[in-house]
Amino acid sequence: MRILGIDPGLTATGFGVVDVDGPHLRYVASGTIRTSPDDGALLPQRLRTLFDGIGEVVRRYQPTVAALEIVFVNVNPQATLILGQARGCCLTALVAHDLPVAEYTALQLKKAVVGYGKAQKHQVQEMVRRLLDLPGLPGKDAADALGLCITHAQVARTTQAIGRVAPLRARTHAAYKDGRSY
Amino acid sequence: MRILGIDPGLTATGFGVVDVDGPHLRYVASGTIRTSPDDGALLPQRLRTLFDGIGEVVRRYQPTVAALEIVFVNVNPQATLILGQARGCCLTALVAHDLPVAEYTALQLKKAVVGYGKAQKHQVQEMVRRLLDLPGLPGKDAADALGLCITHAQVARTTQAIGRVAPLRARTHAAYKDGRSY
Repeated sequence: MRILGIDPGLTATGFGVVDVDGPHLRYVASGTIRTSPDDGALLPQRLRTLFDGIGEVVRRYQPTVAALEIVFVNVNPQATLILGQARGCCLTALVAHDLPVAEYTALQLKKAVVGYGKAQKHQVQEMVRRLLDLPGLPGKDAADALGLCITHAQVARTTQAIGRVAPLRARTHAAYKDGRSY
Repeated sequence: MRILGIDPGLTATGFGVVDVDGPHLRYVASGTIRTSPDDGALLPQRLRTLFDGIGEVVRRYQPTVAALEIVFVNVNPQATLILGQARGCCLTALVAHDLPVAEYTALQLKKAVVGYGKAQKHQVQEMVRRLLDLPGLPGKDAADALGLCITHAQVARTTQAIGRVAPLRARTHAAYKDGRSY
Protein backbone atom coordinates (compact mmCIF):
# COMPACT_ATOMS: atom_id res chain seq x y z
CA MET A 1 0.00 0.00 0.00
CA ARG A 2 1.33 3.43 -0.96
CA ILE A 3 -0.42 6.29 0.82
CA LEU A 4 -0.65 9.89 -0.38
CA GLY A 5 -1.34 12.27 2.50
CA ILE A 6 -2.74 15.73 1.73
CA ASP A 7 -2.94 18.69 4.13
CA PRO A 8 -5.10 21.13 2.17
CA GLY A 9 -4.70 24.90 1.99
CA LEU A 10 -5.02 27.56 -0.70
CA THR A 11 -1.59 29.13 -0.24
CA ALA A 12 0.20 25.94 0.80
CA THR A 13 -0.98 22.34 0.42
CA GLY A 14 1.34 19.79 1.99
CA PHE A 15 1.76 16.34 0.51
CA GLY A 16 3.53 13.21 1.70
CA VAL A 17 3.96 9.75 0.24
CA VAL A 18 4.63 6.72 2.45
CA ASP A 19 4.90 3.03 1.61
CA VAL A 20 3.44 0.52 4.05
CA ASP A 21 4.86 -2.99 4.13
CA GLY A 22 3.34 -4.92 7.03
CA PRO A 23 4.52 -3.16 10.19
CA HIS A 24 7.12 -1.13 8.27
CA LEU A 25 6.71 2.43 7.06
CA ARG A 26 8.98 3.82 4.38
CA TYR A 27 9.25 7.50 3.46
CA VAL A 28 8.95 8.06 -0.28
CA ALA A 29 8.48 11.79 -0.80
CA SER A 30 6.99 14.98 0.62
CA GLY A 31 6.63 18.62 -0.30
CA THR A 32 4.36 21.62 -0.60
CA ILE A 33 2.26 22.84 -3.49
CA ARG A 34 2.15 26.64 -3.31
CA THR A 35 -0.23 29.01 -5.05
CA SER A 36 0.58 32.66 -4.67
CA PRO A 37 -1.73 35.64 -5.24
CA ASP A 38 1.36 37.85 -5.63
CA ASP A 39 1.45 37.61 -9.41
CA GLY A 40 -2.22 38.63 -9.56
CA ALA A 41 -3.50 35.05 -9.83
CA LEU A 42 -7.18 34.80 -8.97
CA LEU A 43 -8.93 31.83 -7.38
CA PRO A 44 -9.59 29.95 -10.67
CA GLN A 45 -5.91 30.08 -11.59
CA ARG A 46 -4.78 29.15 -8.08
CA LEU A 47 -7.10 26.13 -7.94
CA ARG A 48 -5.81 25.09 -11.36
CA THR A 49 -2.26 25.16 -9.97
CA LEU A 50 -3.39 23.05 -7.01
CA PHE A 51 -5.25 20.56 -9.24
CA ASP A 52 -2.28 20.22 -11.60
CA GLY A 53 0.17 19.91 -8.70
CA ILE A 54 -1.77 17.05 -7.10
CA GLY A 55 -2.09 15.42 -10.52
CA GLU A 56 1.67 15.58 -10.97
CA VAL A 57 2.30 14.01 -7.54
CA VAL A 58 -0.22 11.22 -8.30
CA ARG A 59 1.32 10.48 -11.70
CA ARG A 60 4.87 10.50 -10.34
CA TYR A 61 4.34 8.40 -7.21
CA GLN A 62 1.30 6.27 -8.16
CA PRO A 63 -0.28 6.03 -4.69
CA THR A 64 -2.98 3.40 -4.08
CA VAL A 65 -4.96 5.40 -1.50
CA ALA A 66 -5.18 8.98 -0.25
CA ALA A 67 -5.60 10.39 3.26
CA LEU A 68 -6.99 13.93 3.42
CA GLU A 69 -7.24 16.15 6.49
CA ILE A 70 -10.73 17.18 7.54
CA VAL A 71 -10.69 20.95 7.94
CA PHE A 72 -12.49 22.99 10.55
CA VAL A 73 -14.49 26.14 10.69
CA ASN A 74 -12.24 29.14 11.15
CA VAL A 75 -13.05 32.12 13.37
CA ASN A 76 -13.04 34.13 10.14
CA PRO A 77 -15.95 32.97 7.92
CA GLN A 78 -14.22 34.22 4.75
CA ALA A 79 -11.17 32.11 5.63
CA THR A 80 -13.50 29.13 6.12
CA LEU A 81 -14.90 29.70 2.64
CA ILE A 82 -11.43 29.89 1.09
CA LEU A 83 -10.18 26.81 2.94
CA GLY A 84 -13.36 24.94 1.97
CA GLN A 85 -12.78 25.73 -1.70
CA ALA A 86 -9.12 24.69 -1.52
CA ARG A 87 -10.08 21.43 0.20
CA GLY A 88 -12.84 20.83 -2.36
CA CYS A 89 -10.21 21.27 -5.08
CA CYS A 90 -7.82 18.78 -3.42
CA LEU A 91 -10.57 16.22 -2.87
CA THR A 92 -11.75 16.64 -6.47
CA ALA A 93 -8.20 16.15 -7.76
CA LEU A 94 -7.87 12.92 -5.75
CA VAL A 95 -11.19 11.39 -6.83
CA ALA A 96 -10.65 12.58 -10.43
CA HIS A 97 -7.54 10.35 -10.37
CA ASP A 98 -9.65 7.43 -9.10
CA LEU A 99 -8.03 7.35 -5.68
CA PRO A 100 -10.06 6.10 -2.70
CA VAL A 101 -9.96 8.87 -0.07
CA ALA A 102 -9.92 8.40 3.71
CA GLU A 103 -10.47 11.49 5.85
CA TYR A 104 -9.01 12.26 9.26
CA THR A 105 -9.27 15.18 11.64
CA ALA A 106 -6.20 16.90 13.11
CA LEU A 107 -7.21 15.32 16.44
CA GLN A 108 -7.09 11.81 14.96
CA LEU A 109 -3.74 12.62 13.34
CA LYS A 110 -2.19 13.85 16.59
CA LYS A 111 -3.50 10.88 18.56
CA ALA A 112 -2.16 8.44 15.97
CA VAL A 113 1.25 10.09 15.55
CA VAL A 114 2.02 11.57 18.98
CA GLY A 115 -0.49 9.67 21.11
CA TYR A 116 -1.92 12.93 22.43
CA GLY A 117 -4.74 14.91 20.79
CA LYS A 118 -3.46 18.28 21.96
CA ALA A 119 0.09 17.78 20.68
CA GLN A 120 1.89 20.83 19.33
CA LYS A 121 3.02 21.19 15.70
CA HIS A 122 6.68 20.61 16.58
CA GLN A 123 5.79 17.40 18.42
CA VAL A 124 4.08 16.13 15.28
CA GLN A 125 7.14 17.08 13.23
CA GLU A 126 9.48 15.30 15.65
CA MET A 127 7.39 12.10 15.81
CA VAL A 128 7.03 12.02 12.02
CA ARG A 129 10.81 12.36 11.77
CA ARG A 130 11.34 9.44 14.17
CA LEU A 131 8.64 7.14 12.76
CA LEU A 132 9.86 7.61 9.19
CA ASP A 133 13.55 7.70 10.14
CA LEU A 134 14.13 11.05 8.43
CA PRO A 135 17.51 12.79 8.60
CA GLY A 136 15.89 16.09 9.63
CA LEU A 137 12.59 17.69 10.67
CA PRO A 138 10.02 17.87 7.86
CA GLY A 139 8.32 21.23 7.19
CA LYS A 140 4.99 21.80 8.98
CA ASP A 141 2.73 21.22 5.94
CA ALA A 142 4.70 18.16 4.86
CA ALA A 143 4.76 16.84 8.46
CA ASP A 144 0.96 16.97 8.65
CA ALA A 145 0.66 15.25 5.26
CA LEU A 146 3.12 12.52 6.31
CA GLY A 147 1.28 12.28 9.65
CA LEU A 148 -1.93 11.55 7.71
CA CYS A 149 -0.12 8.68 5.94
CA ILE A 150 0.99 7.27 9.32
CA THR A 151 -2.55 7.65 10.68
CA HIS A 152 -4.02 5.82 7.72
CA ALA A 153 -1.42 3.06 7.95
CA GLN A 154 -2.31 2.52 11.63
CA VAL A 155 -6.04 2.48 10.96
CA ALA A 156 -5.64 0.11 8.01
CA ARG A 157 -3.43 -2.20 10.12
CA THR A 158 -5.81 -2.18 13.09
CA THR A 159 -8.91 -2.79 11.02
CA GLN A 160 -7.14 -5.54 9.10
CA ALA A 161 -6.10 -7.20 12.36
CA ILE A 162 -9.63 -7.24 13.75
CA GLY A 163 -11.10 -8.27 10.40
CA ARG A 164 -13.58 -5.49 9.87
CA VAL A 165 -15.01 -4.84 6.45
CA ALA A 166 -14.94 -1.33 5.01
CA PRO A 167 -13.70 0.26 8.24
CA LEU A 168 -12.57 3.49 6.66
CA ARG A 169 -15.99 4.25 5.46
CA ALA A 170 -17.43 3.66 8.92
CA ARG A 171 -14.73 5.82 10.41
CA THR A 172 -15.16 8.76 8.10
CA HIS A 173 -18.90 8.45 8.44
CA ALA A 174 -18.53 8.79 12.19
CA ALA A 175 -16.39 11.88 11.67
CA TYR A 176 -19.17 13.43 9.60
CA LYS A 177 -21.79 12.62 12.20
CA ASP A 178 -19.77 14.35 14.87
CA GLY A 179 -20.79 17.48 13.05
CA ARG A 180 -17.27 18.73 13.54
CA SER A 181 -16.45 18.91 9.89
CA TYR A 182 -19.57 18.82 7.75
CA MET B 1 -19.50 32.77 -27.63
CA ARG B 2 -21.14 29.89 -25.78
CA ILE B 3 -21.45 30.45 -22.03
CA LEU B 4 -21.78 27.75 -19.37
CA GLY B 5 -23.36 29.13 -16.18
CA ILE B 6 -22.87 27.21 -12.93
CA ASP B 7 -24.80 27.78 -9.67
CA PRO B 8 -22.80 25.63 -7.23
CA GLY B 9 -24.20 23.49 -4.41
CA LEU B 10 -23.41 20.08 -2.92
CA THR B 11 -26.92 18.63 -3.19
CA ALA B 12 -27.92 20.51 -6.35
CA THR B 13 -25.68 22.34 -8.81
CA GLY B 14 -27.58 24.18 -11.53
CA PHE B 15 -26.14 24.55 -15.01
CA GLY B 16 -27.22 26.53 -18.05
CA VAL B 17 -25.82 26.93 -21.54
CA VAL B 18 -26.53 30.02 -23.65
CA ASP B 19 -25.22 31.08 -27.05
CA VAL B 20 -24.46 34.76 -27.61
CA ASP B 21 -24.58 36.13 -31.14
CA GLY B 22 -24.20 39.91 -31.08
CA PRO B 23 -27.23 41.23 -29.20
CA HIS B 24 -29.04 37.88 -29.43
CA LEU B 25 -29.17 35.25 -26.72
CA ARG B 26 -30.15 31.69 -27.55
CA TYR B 27 -31.02 29.07 -24.96
CA VAL B 28 -29.10 25.83 -25.52
CA ALA B 29 -29.60 23.69 -22.41
CA SER B 30 -30.05 23.72 -18.65
CA GLY B 31 -30.42 21.29 -15.80
CA THR B 32 -29.31 20.25 -12.34
CA ILE B 33 -26.55 17.92 -11.22
CA ARG B 34 -27.70 16.22 -8.02
CA THR B 35 -25.62 14.37 -5.45
CA SER B 36 -27.59 12.63 -2.76
CA PRO B 37 -26.32 11.40 0.63
CA ASP B 38 -29.32 9.02 0.79
CA ASP B 39 -27.45 6.04 -0.62
CA GLY B 40 -24.70 6.55 1.95
CA ALA B 41 -22.45 8.51 -0.41
CA LEU B 42 -19.80 10.46 1.46
CA LEU B 43 -18.23 13.74 0.38
CA PRO B 44 -15.51 12.19 -1.86
CA GLN B 45 -18.12 10.24 -3.85
CA ARG B 46 -20.46 13.23 -4.05
CA LEU B 47 -17.71 15.55 -5.34
CA ARG B 48 -16.78 12.87 -7.87
CA THR B 49 -20.38 12.89 -9.12
CA LEU B 50 -20.28 16.68 -9.37
CA PHE B 51 -16.91 16.68 -11.18
CA ASP B 52 -18.08 14.01 -13.63
CA GLY B 53 -21.41 15.79 -14.19
CA ILE B 54 -19.75 19.09 -15.07
CA GLY B 55 -17.30 17.21 -17.31
CA GLU B 56 -20.21 15.62 -19.17
CA VAL B 57 -21.91 18.99 -19.68
CA VAL B 58 -18.64 20.53 -20.95
CA ARG B 59 -18.00 17.67 -23.38
CA ARG B 60 -21.57 17.67 -24.67
CA TYR B 61 -22.05 21.43 -25.16
CA GLN B 62 -18.45 22.62 -25.70
CA PRO B 63 -18.79 26.06 -24.03
CA THR B 64 -16.10 28.68 -24.66
CA VAL B 65 -16.34 30.39 -21.27
CA ALA B 66 -17.87 29.69 -17.84
CA ALA B 67 -19.67 31.99 -15.39
CA LEU B 68 -19.69 30.78 -11.78
CA GLU B 69 -21.66 32.25 -8.89
CA ILE B 70 -19.63 33.68 -6.01
CA VAL B 71 -21.01 32.14 -2.83
CA PHE B 72 -21.44 33.80 0.51
CA VAL B 73 -20.82 32.97 4.09
CA ASN B 74 -23.79 31.17 5.57
CA VAL B 75 -25.14 31.77 9.10
CA ASN B 76 -24.18 28.14 9.70
CA PRO B 77 -20.36 27.79 9.49
CA GLN B 78 -20.61 24.05 8.71
CA ALA B 79 -22.88 24.88 5.76
CA THR B 80 -20.32 27.45 4.62
CA LEU B 81 -17.64 24.76 4.68
CA ILE B 82 -19.79 22.35 2.66
CA LEU B 83 -20.76 24.99 0.11
CA GLY B 84 -17.12 26.10 -0.15
CA GLN B 85 -16.03 22.55 -0.94
CA ALA B 86 -18.79 22.09 -3.52
CA ARG B 87 -17.86 25.40 -5.17
CA GLY B 88 -14.17 24.45 -5.10
CA CYS B 89 -15.11 21.22 -6.87
CA CYS B 90 -17.13 23.08 -9.56
CA LEU B 91 -14.36 25.62 -10.12
CA THR B 92 -11.76 22.85 -10.32
CA ALA B 93 -13.88 20.95 -12.86
CA LEU B 94 -14.16 24.08 -15.03
CA VAL B 95 -10.46 24.98 -14.99
CA ALA B 96 -9.48 21.30 -15.40
CA HIS B 97 -11.37 21.50 -18.71
CA ASP B 98 -9.39 24.62 -19.67
CA LEU B 99 -12.37 26.97 -19.46
CA PRO B 100 -11.81 30.62 -18.55
CA VAL B 101 -14.01 31.36 -15.54
CA ALA B 102 -15.76 34.66 -14.76
CA GLU B 103 -17.30 35.03 -11.30
CA TYR B 104 -20.41 37.00 -10.32
CA THR B 105 -22.24 37.56 -7.07
CA ALA B 106 -26.00 36.96 -6.73
CA LEU B 107 -26.34 40.75 -6.48
CA GLN B 108 -24.64 41.26 -9.85
CA LEU B 109 -26.81 38.51 -11.34
CA LYS B 110 -30.07 40.07 -10.09
CA LYS B 111 -29.06 43.54 -11.26
CA ALA B 112 -28.14 42.23 -14.71
CA VAL B 113 -31.22 40.03 -15.16
CA VAL B 114 -33.98 41.84 -13.27
CA GLY B 115 -32.40 45.30 -12.92
CA TYR B 116 -32.88 45.19 -9.17
CA GLY B 117 -30.37 43.74 -6.67
CA LYS B 118 -33.01 42.64 -4.19
CA ALA B 119 -35.12 40.77 -6.73
CA GLN B 120 -36.88 37.59 -5.57
CA LYS B 121 -36.12 34.13 -6.94
CA HIS B 122 -39.37 34.02 -8.94
CA GLN B 123 -38.55 37.38 -10.55
CA VAL B 124 -35.22 35.97 -11.72
CA GLN B 125 -37.00 32.89 -13.08
CA GLU B 126 -39.58 35.03 -14.93
CA MET B 127 -36.98 37.38 -16.47
CA VAL B 128 -34.79 34.45 -17.53
CA ARG B 129 -37.88 32.91 -19.19
CA ARG B 130 -38.58 36.14 -21.08
CA LEU B 131 -34.98 36.97 -22.07
CA LEU B 132 -34.36 33.46 -23.38
CA ASP B 133 -37.87 33.07 -24.82
CA LEU B 134 -38.51 29.84 -22.92
CA PRO B 135 -41.90 28.09 -23.10
CA GLY B 136 -42.11 27.80 -19.30
CA LEU B 137 -40.38 28.84 -16.07
CA PRO B 138 -36.96 27.26 -15.52
CA GLY B 139 -36.26 25.58 -12.17
CA LYS B 140 -34.60 27.75 -9.53
CA ASP B 141 -31.09 26.26 -9.82
CA ALA B 142 -31.23 26.30 -13.62
CA ALA B 143 -32.65 29.87 -13.60
CA ASP B 144 -29.67 31.11 -11.58
CA ALA B 145 -27.25 29.29 -13.89
CA LEU B 146 -28.94 30.75 -16.99
CA GLY B 147 -29.00 34.14 -15.24
CA LEU B 148 -25.21 33.92 -14.86
CA CYS B 149 -24.95 33.35 -18.63
CA ILE B 150 -27.09 36.43 -19.27
CA THR B 151 -24.98 38.44 -16.80
CA HIS B 152 -21.76 37.40 -18.49
CA ALA B 153 -23.17 38.15 -21.95
CA GLN B 154 -24.09 41.67 -20.79
CA VAL B 155 -20.70 42.30 -19.21
CA ALA B 156 -18.86 40.97 -22.27
CA ARG B 157 -21.01 43.14 -24.57
CA THR B 158 -20.54 46.27 -22.46
CA THR B 159 -16.80 45.84 -22.08
CA GLN B 160 -16.47 45.09 -25.79
CA ALA B 161 -18.42 48.27 -26.62
CA ILE B 162 -16.19 50.47 -24.50
CA GLY B 163 -13.03 48.71 -25.69
CA ARG B 164 -11.55 47.62 -22.39
CA VAL B 165 -8.90 44.96 -22.25
CA ALA B 166 -9.32 42.00 -19.91
CA PRO B 167 -12.39 43.49 -18.23
CA LEU B 168 -13.57 40.26 -16.62
CA ARG B 169 -10.41 39.91 -14.69
CA ALA B 170 -10.70 43.46 -13.43
CA ARG B 171 -14.29 42.81 -12.50
CA THR B 172 -13.72 39.62 -10.59
CA HIS B 173 -10.74 41.20 -8.93
CA ALA B 174 -12.98 43.98 -7.67
CA ALA B 175 -15.38 41.38 -6.33
CA TYR B 176 -12.54 39.81 -4.35
CA LYS B 177 -11.41 43.12 -2.98
CA ASP B 178 -14.88 43.84 -1.67
CA GLY B 179 -14.14 41.07 0.76
CA ARG B 180 -17.64 39.81 0.18
CA SER B 181 -16.61 36.49 -1.20
CA TYR B 182 -13.02 35.70 -0.34
